Amino acid sequence: MELFNKYCFIGCNKSFEESKIVLFGAPFDGTCSYRPGSRFAPNKIRIDSYGLETYSPYLDRDLEDHFVHDAGDIDLTFGNKYAVLDAIKGYADHLLRNGKKPLMIGGEHLVTLPVVSAVYESYQDVVVLHFDAHTDLRGHYMGEELSHATVIKQIWNFLGDGRIYQFGIRSGLKEEFYWAEKEGHTFINKYGYEKLKDIVEKIKNKPVYVTIDLDILDPSIFPGTGTPEPGGISFHDMLNILKTLDGLNIIGADVVELAPDYDPTGVSTAVASKVLRELMLIL
Amino acid sequence: MELFNKYCFIGCNKSFEESKIVLFGAPFDGTCSYRPGSRFAPNKIRIDSYGLETYSPYLDRDLEDHFVHDAGDIDLTFGNKYAVLDAIKGYADHLLRNGKKPLMIGGEHLVTLPVVSAVYESYQDVVVLHFDAHTDLRGHYMGEELSHATVIKQIWNFLGDGRIYQFGIRSGLKEEFYWAEKEGHTFINKYGYEKLKDIVEKIKNKPVYVTIDLDILDPSIFPGTGTPEPGGISFHDMLNILKTLDGLNIIGADVVELAPDYDPTGVSTAVASKVLRELMLIL
Amino acid sequence: MELFNKYCFIGCNKSFEESKIVLFGAPFDGTCSYRPGSRFAPNKIRIDSYGLETYSPYLDRDLEDHFVHDAGDIDLTFGNKYAVLDAIKGYADHLLRNGKKPLMIGGEHLVTLPVVSAVYESYQDVVVLHFDAHTDLRGHYMGEELSHATVIKQIWNFLGDGRIYQFGIRSGLKEEFYWAEKEGHTFINKYGYEKLKDIVEKIKNKPVYVTIDLDILDPSIFPGTGTPEPGGISFHDMLNILKTLDGLNIIGADVVELAPDYDPTGVSTAVASKVLRELMLIL
Amino acid sequence: MELFNKYCFIGCNKSFEESKIVLFGAPFDGTCSYRPGSRFAPNKIRIDSYGLETYSPYLDRDLEDHFVHDAGDIDLTFGNKYAVLDAIKGYADHLLRNGKKPLMIGGEHLVTLPVVSAVYESYQDVVVLHFDAHTDLRGHYMGEELSHATVIKQIWNFLGDGRIYQFGIRSGLKEEFYWAEKEGHTFINKYGYEKLKDIVEKIKNKPVYVTIDLDILDPSIFPGTGTPEPGGISFHDMLNILKTLDGLNIIGADVVELAPDYDPTGVSTAVASKVLRELMLIL
Amino acid sequence: MELFNKYCFIGCNKSFEESKIVLFGAPFDGTCSYRPGSRFAPNKIRIDSYGLETYSPYLDRDLEDHFVHDAGDIDLTFGNKYAVLDAIKGYADHLLRNGKKPLMIGGEHLVTLPVVSAVYESYQDVVVLHFDAHTDLRGHYMGEELSHATVIKQIWNFLGDGRIYQFGIRSGLKEEFYWAEKEGHTFINKYGYEKLKDIVEKIKNKPVYVTIDLDILDPSIFPGTGTPEPGGISFHDMLNILKTLDGLNIIGADVVELAPDYDPTGVSTAVASKVLRELMLIL
Amino acid sequence: MELFNKYCFIGCNKSFEESKIVLFGAPFDGTCSYRPGSRFAPNKIRIDSYGLETYSPYLDRDLEDHFVHDAGDIDLTFGNKYAVLDAIKGYADHLLRNGKKPLMIGGEHLVTLPVVSAVYESYQDVVVLHFDAHTDLRGHYMGEELSHATVIKQIWNFLGDGRIYQFGIRSGLKEEFYWAEKEGHTFINKYGYEKLKDIVEKIKNKPVYVTIDLDILDPSIFPGTGTPEPGGISFHDMLNILKTLDGLNIIGADVVELAPDYDPTGVSTAVASKVLRELMLIL
Repeated sequence: MELFNKYCFIGCNKSFEESKIVLFGAPFDGTCSYRPGSRFAPNKIRIDSYGLETYSPYLDRDLEDHFVHDAGDIDLTFGNKYAVLDAIKGYADHLLRNGKKPLMIGGEHLVTLPVVSAVYESYQDVVVLHFDAHTDLRGHYMGEELSHATVIKQIWNFLGDGRIYQFGIRSGLKEEFYWAEKEGHTFINKYGYEKLKDIVEKIKNKPVYVTIDLDILDPSIFPGTGTPEPGGISFHDMLNILKTLDGLNIIGADVVELAPDYDPTGVSTAVASKVLRELMLIL
Repeated sequence: MELFNKYCFIGCNKSFEESKIVLFGAPFDGTCSYRPGSRFAPNKIRIDSYGLETYSPYLDRDLEDHFVHDAGDIDLTFGNKYAVLDAIKGYADHLLRNGKKPLMIGGEHLVTLPVVSAVYESYQDVVVLHFDAHTDLRGHYMGEELSHATVIKQIWNFLGDGRIYQFGIRSGLKEEFYWAEKEGHTFINKYGYEKLKDIVEKIKNKPVYVTIDLDILDPSIFPGTGTPEPGGISFHDMLNILKTLDGLNIIGADVVELAPDYDPTGVSTAVASKVLRELMLIL
Repeated sequence: MELFNKYCFIGCNKSFEESKIVLFGAPFDGTCSYRPGSRFAPNKIRIDSYGLETYSPYLDRDLEDHFVHDAGDIDLTFGNKYAVLDAIKGYADHLLRNGKKPLMIGGEHLVTLPVVSAVYESYQDVVVLHFDAHTDLRGHYMGEELSHATVIKQIWNFLGDGRIYQFGIRSGLKEEFYWAEKEGHTFINKYGYEKLKDIVEKIKNKPVYVTIDLDILDPSIFPGTGTPEPGGISFHDMLNILKTLDGLNIIGADVVELAPDYDPTGVSTAVASKVLRELMLIL
Repeated sequence: MELFNKYCFIGCNKSFEESKIVLFGAPFDGTCSYRPGSRFAPNKIRIDSYGLETYSPYLDRDLEDHFVHDAGDIDLTFGNKYAVLDAIKGYADHLLRNGKKPLMIGGEHLVTLPVVSAVYESYQDVVVLHFDAHTDLRGHYMGEELSHATVIKQIWNFLGDGRIYQFGIRSGLKEEFYWAEKEGHTFINKYGYEKLKDIVEKIKNKPVYVTIDLDILDPSIFPGTGTPEPGGISFHDMLNILKTLDGLNIIGADVVELAPDYDPTGVSTAVASKVLRELMLIL
Repeated sequence: MELFNKYCFIGCNKSFEESKIVLFGAPFDGTCSYRPGSRFAPNKIRIDSYGLETYSPYLDRDLEDHFVHDAGDIDLTFGNKYAVLDAIKGYADHLLRNGKKPLMIGGEHLVTLPVVSAVYESYQDVVVLHFDAHTDLRGHYMGEELSHATVIKQIWNFLGDGRIYQFGIRSGLKEEFYWAEKEGHTFINKYGYEKLKDIVEKIKNKPVYVTIDLDILDPSIFPGTGTPEPGGISFHDMLNILKTLDGLNIIGADVVELAPDYDPTGVSTAVASKVLRELMLIL
Repeated sequence: MELFNKYCFIGCNKSFEESKIVLFGAPFDGTCSYRPGSRFAPNKIRIDSYGLETYSPYLDRDLEDHFVHDAGDIDLTFGNKYAVLDAIKGYADHLLRNGKKPLMIGGEHLVTLPVVSAVYESYQDVVVLHFDAHTDLRGHYMGEELSHATVIKQIWNFLGDGRIYQFGIRSGLKEEFYWAEKEGHTFINKYGYEKLKDIVEKIKNKPVYVTIDLDILDPSIFPGTGTPEPGGISFHDMLNILKTLDGLNIIGADVVELAPDYDPTGVSTAVASKVLRELMLIL
């Protein structure tokens, strides 16, 4: 007589073996500079996902018909970011070796670094689509090279020019914008995603990694995040982005920077859950 | 020496006898599947309505010039939905017998069933306009036929095809959408209300009942609800909808699914109050 | 490569087979008359239990050394209390048949009824220790016989006089106090638990069921509940109560009426978790 | 067919004519120096009073058996404290002329001044019992003589020495304590109420006015107030105080400084409601 | 060895002498008719401004390159609005005499009156651009002439016709709209700012004072305010407004009506901070 | 014309030179294992300290008569605990070299380590009084030696046996209690502080460092902390502790683990402020 155990994300109760996609949490927020708490995102998303349906009318697809395994969370050491990054890299390697697509729930944005690093070992020509309010292109942040504010720069360090596409960006240092826009090291679509269609066309034969910092969304619909940045895109925009990505060869993805305790209404978690559902359905 | 008693909705202090419209609350949330609390909506709306003006610049009309009686709340038995539905039906009958238009504040969406049922006895050709994020078309929900997730299907059971028009719908089971869209039992305008004008033209000679599940609104502006569903319409859209309905022969209406305790900012209640004011002014 | 899966209550990761105690959730709040939300208690308690240690310095015992299986939650139908009570009764029967001690997390207090009913079938001489702010002795509540306000009376219906001991009671109808105190159908220790020691001595050879409505605690330390009732006992008092029960032949227990969303500080859930830990360690 | 109208405080639905006690609200917080919001207290107390029973087991009395009329709130002008004080004085005069006992819900503490002033005209020998965390004895506050921090000094201005008894006081200027304790203008029982019994004995033949600033309670049980002051009395202490006052000739009373929006758990309002219930039962 | 002192608004650490703009707070909310708390805005904005960058990609300007002095807050007397208005007027006079541009953080909207009054003495031809949800044109409010609901009317009293331009207005009495629109005493652009460009062209040679009541924004993005009024403009609209003002001869400005405690997500304060940053960059 | 600048803790506006005590903040929470956010404590305490009086009736002393300089916060690098500890150590050295007593506001408990380390260089015979709910005696926490859960063990590493006295402890691993109690490396007074008087007598001739983890307090009065642990001491107990310490040769102190965002009532910050005030008055 088995009881109903709601722990996995809704509809993600397939076994590891039969699944193409493996969902896992990386509850780390140790370099967050303003409001911490993204460590609480994975569990909150799983529980609140039961307010969702498994069926998406936008895509006319149902999670029940897909094969996703929710593996739980990586057990991370607070206060040692090197150990944290190693643990995440190790698990991503494990998934890739087993032919699974990693789908990670952050945590803060720094957790993206080890996954892209693992993906890069398997897919040398990987292209990164980065959705965010912030540039994340600092060389260092208060003396540290590994930080949620430097993560994309760290990824550029091994990917190099022409491989990173940034959308929705509306905050950063003058120097970061200069480095990206004037020096051309990354592609930046400021504020919105008007040029996404063109980019998708251009990279359609490449393996693609998608990293979504949910603070790309306007804080009216997503207040529960470390650094709320007014002036973001709407949820409809996010749906459009995901539909535009449909058909790409996405080989991994993540959704980061939900800090659920800062939104007592629960809406931010509902948003994160729905973004995750749509993302799974296009993977 | 009478003190100021703020209990009624602002401007609804006319007597029962002189009023055309009777406002009342149905504080029931017993079948709510996710976050309960819509039972607290009627009282909270009344108190917070004093942050509103009685004058609507949108319609250039003033509640002070209209005749609305706020009758208070129906006293409902928790834990017995049959008794609850009977009590609401009884009060709606009483209003209709006295030539009043019922205007109900929910509670959850199931409370709409007894009012439409009462209205149907007086107006056999009544047409239902349904504004909502959710289809509410299940045959049963976890074994129960009477639920906030089945209410529109229950209404269809006696109204039949061609009488229900649904707007803003963005969540439901694949089967519900199929039943409505493919089999054509109801009319569905997914996500928005583009076809409302045409429908209004088509039904302009019919008696119309309007049921507004406030979760049709995006949770950015209306987070205080049982099942927040990102991707909804804006408050401006809601004003447009109400203006479009102006001129119809509306013989009853309701506003449901505000769960005020989930929104500590109070904005959800302010939204519900303003929707109610505009609705009264077009009744 | 197994990830860390935090879903069960801390330290309760033993298998069903090897465990003497089975923890399960009954997330029902359908007859709650004031503030609903105890349906969210089981999941919240599990997640927040990771803020606890498994070791109790009060008892000098460690959960790691005990055998408790956390079975998850019973899947309940909202809006049909009869089906809910049947499902809980069925699961409690299943546990008792397998020689397990049921340990339930509510939900509202009505969920105690089916468990005591199941226990009674195995232990005809069972005695109930009831810790609560409220009498819960009404014959009916707004016309309903099955309600969180009538649950102890319902239990008395089959147990009869001299079998129910109530502690901490500080709210009820005049009639309820009369029925219990003057007519002597139950034993009531108003406000506190001064007479608990004597009662424990008296019933030490009987099978005992313990039901703890956490609102026995003062709302200063336990605000997250449906009906906060100032003037309750302290957490130290609760620890004393549990130590006093140590040694009794407790054959089942429950902890009910945490409504976690009403306490944004999370303290109420921390309290519930610690009460559960101590309770497990004396079972 | 009358609906249930919950607006009055529970059990206070007797008519003005038949009632001995008249409850009314004075929703003013205009001189509050720290956190405003006590203006929202009267309405919140009324609504949440329905979480209470009308029966007090402490006193073995039931509000249903008493005659209290809830008159609603005085309509006050924000931003003009002189007009506010006049309006309150006028209403208190009206009650006293009609032989009623005024029972006021604040609002901030300044609202006590006009009621005591009205009472003083009828009862020249009135004695004031003042329960509070703060001395409220300043001559002026930031240049203003009429303030929540000066109210007891203002009352002393017409009552004079030997007429004011203060309990629970734990915060104030050094000068205020000196003026009261060393110069002896008022009687101060610091921190607690050990000497209340003696005082009650001493004043038992006098008309007594009782003013309760709820911040006398520890903020653990009463956080929702303008200036939370740790180190206060418990709710049990408050019950003891009220029982000690039973039998005095209390000719008016008030309960002030609940700022409900600062306590999202609702416990502060539950506390205020229960204090009011007990207070009514000893009046 | 100086520690980092975060008190001033980010990037506003220039000295009084070298600065052209002086930022100061006026923490007064004494005439607020609905939800008080704007007194807490200045400090909260300063602290949360550290979640912002000093660089604006919208304007491609950096606060570090500008000269703004953050002077702290005016010390105001609660409960005496005349003294408050005098103190603000005095400080604004001081700034103008020293050739500084005043930039004030409210507080409620009444604090705008003394600053415009001071500005008017130096710039007889000053034009006021007023961004708000509310008309603020009442002759009196509950008998009082000086109130947040009358402030623009009070300014009109000395400026007269043709000098005040109002944008975003969506709430007021019928009489106020009539007085402004029909009688033409002010210019009103209801709901939005479509005509702002024309007005800017028209007044480009005049000294301009800009007063921004942040409740012009939709409460989805700005819930933390005294009277949330659904149907407002978006943050993108606000950025457009500020860009449109760039180039005008703005000789003073203010940002009022943030009540931060009503928004536990902190987003309202983030919005206010970003509006202030952009405003400084166009001054 | 200087404005009122409220940034320092109330009454701590003396210059560095004239002060004996220097107050500073260490806003670090990077190793917090459960709920982060103590980084926000120093600023919140300063602002909310204005709800306090400078005069303590408990001690009959006034902060205005003492010489305390509030130096602001140390600017710390997130994500690098080694750099953080170095910076704090450096500042504590600077204070000690200048003959000042360091008084630190945390941050998490790990920040105590560098200050005690600095103090130890000046006072080889320093004794540490440790008030806390948790042992903090782990050798490592999830592989890390520097953590809020290991801090007292780290201090023991250089102080050795017989130098650390722990009070209020009610949570830890079995091994920690064994190490302290059975092996006797530290002195532990579990749950309370009954033996404090004896210890004070014993160490009265030694230099003493006092570290107060505010979670020693019961979460009823102090919910805003990383790991709320029910069963703590009351605020009255805390006052007694501080009075008992009066007269000791305290050469430094800290108050840590306030996480203000977890307590929307603000009471936790009020408690921290009052503890700080009393602590200053006995230093």
